[in-house]
Amino acid sequence: MLRPMNSRLFTFSGGGVGEWLVTEQRPVVGEPLPLVSRLRVTSGEASVVSDAVWQLCGVTSNQRYVTRAEQSELSLKQQAIGRTSCNRAALIPIRKNESWWALPQDERNAIIANSRHIPIGLRYLPAIARRLHHCRDIAQAAPFDFLTWFDYTEADARAFEELVGALRESEEWRFVDREVDLRLAR
Amino acid sequence: MLRPMNSRLFTFSGGGVGEWLVTEQRPVVGEPLPLVSRLRVTSGEASVVSDAVWQLCGVTSNQRYVTRAEQSELSLKQQAIGRTSCNRAALIPIRKNESWWALPQDERNAIIANSRHIPIGLRYLPAIARRLHHCRDIAQAAPFDFLTWFDYTEADARAFEELVGALRESEEWRFVDREVDLRLAR
Repeated sequence: MLRPMNSRLFTFSGGGVGEWLVTEQRPVVGEPLPLVSRLRVTSGEASVVSDAVWQLCGVTSNQRYVTRAEQSELSLKQQAIGRTSCNRAALIPIRKNESWWALPQDERNAIIANSRHIPIGLRYLPAIARRLHHCRDIAQAAPFDFLTWFDYTEADARAFEELVGALRESEEWRFVDREVDLRLAR
Repeated sequence: MLRPMNSRLFTFSGGGVGEWLVTEQRPVVGEPLPLVSRLRVTSGEASVVSDAVWQLCGVTSNQRYVTRAEQSELSLKQQAIGRTSCNRAALIPIRKNESWWALPQDERNAIIANSRHIPIGLRYLPAIARRLHHCRDIAQAAPFDFLTWFDYTEADARAFEELVGALRESEEWRFVDREVDLRLAR
């Protein structure tokens, strides 16, 4: 049964084609992904890039930990991904371990709050735009739980390093058991 | 690219075949589903029931609103779906409106708590077993956000009516814009 796709679906296809040139690719923790030279990002359609080395799919979704106050601040400051001025991007797929997923909502929420995940991101708005894709609950088996896609200008590349560095030092990141970091330019 | 399926995927196929006989089917709010006489429930596999009138897929996932205290009580009392003594079941697919999904986590959490969703369910354990499947974030377009599957004995059929009646009177249910109710026997 061929179905129409979720309108919030995005597919990241790594291979030899695509608008984004991969400038760095490294495993941060756990198993690496095969190296690729280019990345194609597609929206809403079934994933049919025949020459892809790998394809990662995820859907944007509702907030899981954001409070009303944070949501108001985010909506004032954040800009949508895809600004023409942004010639730098990062794709950071992560997976969290089973201990994380077995925690009740109140305890996951406390860890995210204690890790200052949302305030850290807010500090770099609007320079660094972010779009989060969820993959844990798609119908197909997926190697990661989340794909985060960022874009920014070359001038903000150092700020981006600060942002990911701060997150990786947090309590939340102790639950990350697979992470790959790709940096891109166009 | 043919992918293996999520191990938490379940597919409910309505049609003329399946282990469950549909004894009642009615739309509670919003558009109905085409009437079917039987239901087949499959796990983990791609949905390929060629004679199905409709197929609904969802994945079991982490808790979104449960506290540590509630989780402890649930794990003490709840039993897994599929008890051989249970010859009655219900499938209740629901969709929530865009206002619900736009709310931040703290406000959705407060509505669920105020609606006593989890305490109401706890009251009927272990008699009424429940398995929740999420469909909003699968890669394919899905007509519902959640599929809830219950099983119980004929002796607990009246208790089941009380349970769904209490939930439908809650503040949470004001956000439900599509709901279908199927009752089944085997």
